[in-house]
This record gives sequence, C-alpha cells and structure tokens, in this order.
Amino acid sequence: MPKIIRFHETGDADVLKIEDLPLTEPGEGEVRLKVEAIGLNRAEVMFRQGQYLETPELPSRLGYEASGTIDALGSNVTDFQMGDRVSTIPGFSMSAYGVYGESAVVPVSAVAHYPENLSASEGTAIWMQYLTAFGALIEIGQLKKEDVVAITAASSSVGLAAIQVTKSAGALAIATTRGADKKQALLDAGADHVIVTNDEDLAERVMSITSDKGANIIFDPVGGPMLETLATAAAVGAIIFEYGALAPEATPFPLFSSLAKGLTIRGYTLFEITKDADRMARGKQYVYDGLQSGTLKPIIDRSFTLDEITDAHRYMESNQQKGKIVVTV
Amino acid sequence: MPKIIRFHETGDADVLKIEDLPLTEPGEGEVRLKVEAIGLNRAEVMFRQGQYLETPELPSRLGYEASGTIDALGSNVTDFQMGDRVSTIPGFSMSAYGVYGESAVVPVSAVAHYPENLSASEGTAIWMQYLTAFGALIEIGQLKKEDVVAITAASSSVGLAAIQVTKSAGALAIATTRGADKKQALLDAGADHVIVTNDEDLAERVMSITSDKGANIIFDPVGGPMLETLATAAAVGAIIFEYGALAPEATPFPLFSSLAKGLTIRGYTLFEITKDADRMARGKQYVYDGLQSGTLKPIIDRSFTLDEITDAHRYMESNQQKGKIVVTV
Repeated sequence: MPKIIRFHETGDADVLKIEDLPLTEPGEGEVRLKVEAIGLNRAEVMFRQGQYLETPELPSRLGYEASGTIDALGSNVTDFQMGDRVSTIPGFSMSAYGVYGESAVVPVSAVAHYPENLSASEGTAIWMQYLTAFGALIEIGQLKKEDVVAITAASSSVGLAAIQVTKSAGALAIATTRGADKKQALLDAGADHVIVTNDEDLAERVMSITSDKGANIIFDPVGGPMLETLATAAAVGAIIFEYGALAPEATPFPLFSSLAKGLTIRGYTLFEITKDADRMARGKQYVYDGLQSGTLKPIIDRSFTLDEITDAHRYMESNQQKGKIVVTV
Repeated sequence: MPKIIRFHETGDADVLKIEDLPLTEPGEGEVRLKVEAIGLNRAEVMFRQGQYLETPELPSRLGYEASGTIDALGSNVTDFQMGDRVSTIPGFSMSAYGVYGESAVVPVSAVAHYPENLSASEGTAIWMQYLTAFGALIEIGQLKKEDVVAITAASSSVGLAAIQVTKSAGALAIATTRGADKKQALLDAGADHVIVTNDEDLAERVMSITSDKGANIIFDPVGGPMLETLATAAAVGAIIFEYGALAPEATPFPLFSSLAKGLTIRGYTLFEITKDADRMARGKQYVYDGLQSGTLKPIIDRSFTLDEITDAHRYMESNQQKGKIVVTV
C-alpha cells in the first residue's frame, strides 16, 4: 500500500501523518501518478492550518504539485499514456485531490508533460510558480518592457518566478525581502534592485529607483499593513496584485492613495488561469517556451524526503527558503 | 465688486464667508464667468473641512461647478466668445480655482457649452455627475447590457447619474440608500431595485436579485466597513469602484473575498477623465448625446441663494437631498 500524507485535524506541522492507504483507481477523466517528487506551496500550510480559501474535509490529503509517471488511466483519457512523465498543475480542489504521497489520483486537466531536460524535482517546481506569475503579470497586468514591477516576498518560489517573468519581458524588477541574508540570492536570480525591508523604507527606495514615478505593477502575497506602503510606492494608474494572505494582521484598504492615483487593487489566484481554457493554453505555451529558451529556470532551495514532511512544512514556515522546497519520494 | 465665497480656516459650514472682492482678470488660457448658478458637490464640503485630496491654501475659494456667461477672455482663447453660455467641468485644482461667487476665472479647458434647452441650474448639474459615472461605468467598467450595477449612496447627484447611465446601457441598476424615505425617488429615477440598508441586508438582497451571481460592477463613494459587504455582494470577477471617502471609519480591504472572486477594487476620481483629452472628448459627446436623447436628465433637489451658502452646505451634510443641490446667483 502506498504511503500517503493526511491530516485528521487542522493545526501545526505535527498534524501531518504518513499513512499506508489502499491504492485508489482513477475515475473518468482522471489519471494516477506514481509520485517521484512533490513541490511544496504556502497554500498547503494554510490549508493544513484551516486558514486557506478552501476548508479541508477531515481526514484530508493535501498538496497541489507533484511529478511522476502515470501508472493508471481512468476512462475517457486520451491525451496521456501509461508511463508518461508528467507533473500536476494546481487547478483542482485540494479537498477533492491532494498529491502528497507515493500515489496520487488527479484530474487529467491538471496534468501536463514537463520538458525532458528537467529532473522530477524541477518538473514539480514549474506550474504553480510560473503560471501564477504569468497570469498576473502577463495576462492581466499586460507586462511591457517599460514597466517597473515590485515583487514582495520575492524569495518564495512564486516571487522568484515573477522576477524571471519580469526580466524575460525586459522590464525592471524590484524585489523586496525582510532580511539582508537573502539579498544576494535575489540579485543572483535576476532582480535589478533588492529592498531589504527590515533596514530600508520600501516606498522611499521604490520612489528613488524610479525617479519618483513609483512601480506600476506590484505583486504581493502578503497583504496586511504593507498594502498601504505598497500603495505609497505605486505609480499613478498602477495595479497591485494581492495573491495571498500571509500577513496575520488585517489589511487596511489604502483609500486615499487609491483615489489620488487611480490604483487598481486586484485579488488574484491561479484559479483564474486554470479555470479558463484559453488562458491555460497560453500559459502552458509561455512556460514551455521560457523553459526551453532558458529565461525561466526553476530554483530549488532544498529537498526533503517523504518521511521528513513535517520538517519540510516547518522549514517553509521558517521563511528561510530562497526558492522551491521539494520532497522526493 | 463681486460677492465671492471664501473660507479663512477649515471647519464646519460657518467658515464660509461672503466677501466683496475685486474682479480678477483671466490670464492666458483662462476665461471669466459671470456666474448664474453653482452646483454643489460633496468634494467642496470635504475641501472646506480640510479632508479632501487637495489641501486649501487659506484664505481659499472653493467650488467645482458653475454655469454662467463668459464676460472676459484671457489671451490664447479661441473656442469661446464673450457672452457664451457655459458651465464648468471640474478638471482643475480647487485651490487654484474655485467657482462659488458672482464671478469666477477658470481654465478654458474646464469650460463647455451646455445645451440650450437646459436652465442655468440644470447646466451646472451635468459635468461632475455624468462624467464621473461615464468614466467609471463606461470608460473603465465597459458597461454592457448584461451587467448588474450596484450603486451606493444612490440619491446623490452622481448616484442618480449612475442610475441613468446604467439604464441607458440597458443594464440592471440596483440602488442602495440608508433610509426608506428615499426609496420611491430612486425607483422614479430609474433604479430597477432599491435596497434600504437600514432595514435590509445589502449582500443578501443583491444575491437574491441576481440569483446568487452578485453584482459585477459596484459604484461606491462611501468606503469604510461597507466595502467588505460590497465584496460579499460582488460577482466573480467584479469591479468595485471606490470614488469617494464618505465613511468616517477606516476601510478594511476585503482580502479573502478578493482572492476567492478575483475582485478588482479600483480607486477612481473624475481627474482620470478630465486629464485625458481622448476620454474627455468621448465623455463630452456621451453627455451631449444623452441629454439630447433624454436618457440623461439632471435631477435638481433644491435651490438656495448665494446668501444661503452655509445653509446649502449644511443641507448637503444632512444627506436629505435626492439629486443636485444648486445655488442660484
């Protein structure tokens, strides 16, 4: 029986249990993966804590991203074959599907081949991060080379992906991070400027870098009181994407800055892309092209084994990572 | 010497003083109006209180909208002649220009002829309200007949204009008002549904009216805690315009609704239209066409005389009005 990660109550990382569960068969329009690597996401930490957009039905599996080979096909699956190397695209309900474990059944719509030159660990570190950045910056933000993009929590896998997406459009990438320890890694990842928010005034630095124009695209998973700061750092007519809710504090709406500058504050999740066939098709092509040309290159921070899943979650919560945290199976 | 309204300190309506001041000459690109009527706006109350986007330089004139005849032309003014009947478009700094009084100098870019069949009172009750609604709903919101538009503070001149703009596009207009006393006036003004927020749950009613889809355009000058309610009443992918800051309370950002529904919350002021020549040209044409066809029809609530300016401001602050408050000169 495959080892599967589940939790029977919401809470800290200790609630994650490794269980031996019967192999399940894929239903219509589903495939089963023999999992080789799992990519961790903040969404899973929040889901485990009961603080995500979706509420778990206990006991619950979890996990959006895995790579592996297809070892069972449900009915009406035509685009994939047994043995195909694929990774999952997080376009499904985590309550209904969850990929942490040695085996996972997922909808075929949420499966894609990944380039042959990528390892299984790299293959599970592409869809969430690049599609999330693509959807906000390219599809909605209409990123152009004249743009100035401010990227907060830039050391996360999505943050780093946003730097790569920004640079591949020829635009200016300003990355922010709390501590100075991650500054060099962000410069190495392609950021034009790095603002260390523990030591520097974010809005002042953005204004200084941009000759007082401000950033016209801001990409933020934090929220909380920082949104007011981001609005101060925003250019006239800027768009601020809020794509997460990491801040424990409430998020005041920056009403006066929004009025004075005509700001757009845009709640955004990857579901806007995964639920739209046209956008998904464009997104997949964008990611394939970027991986092939080398403008997109997954950055793996650290690997854990399946036995170390609680450590892997704790490590994510410690915010030390600079890139994707992967669990090899 | 013409009577001019000024204030020497910010504060309540009593700070407004009627002063005899020398007639001023228009400079380059300016014209002078012999004022016949003044249209009051909430912005002037906030400016007087020192709570507007712009800070007054004391002593300060105030006022965005007046109608009258041109009685002096500055240099380089070619589109207007002495004696032209015009009204002002609020596309200027209230600190630099202010139209409350018997005479006002304004930039020629902020002057437009108004249709001959309108009275001076009606002529000063068109630009702020219709261009504000046009800019948000038509230019940015891309209003279509399938849309459901929720309009808060709907009894204000801009609110009523938004109802007319919504109905002229064939879309559904849901108006909200605090007290039941204004319900009939809003129905008479064309609202398809009126929600009395003192008695009814705004979000529940919007969901009930829309078969649980929600409103996909929301037009709100209030902010404050109601923004959270409006986000609850919003459809997936909706846009919420915040075009004022009437609420005394802080405005929490509805982060979870925004993420779950992909909401756009858009700070907006008329300056986005008045500062953009193309948008202004489209806006003027839209207003002229609507006034001519009768889909747009200014609603005057009550008239005061210049001597009664403090009463007029107090009346606006009492929130009893259902339409434009006008001061005749």
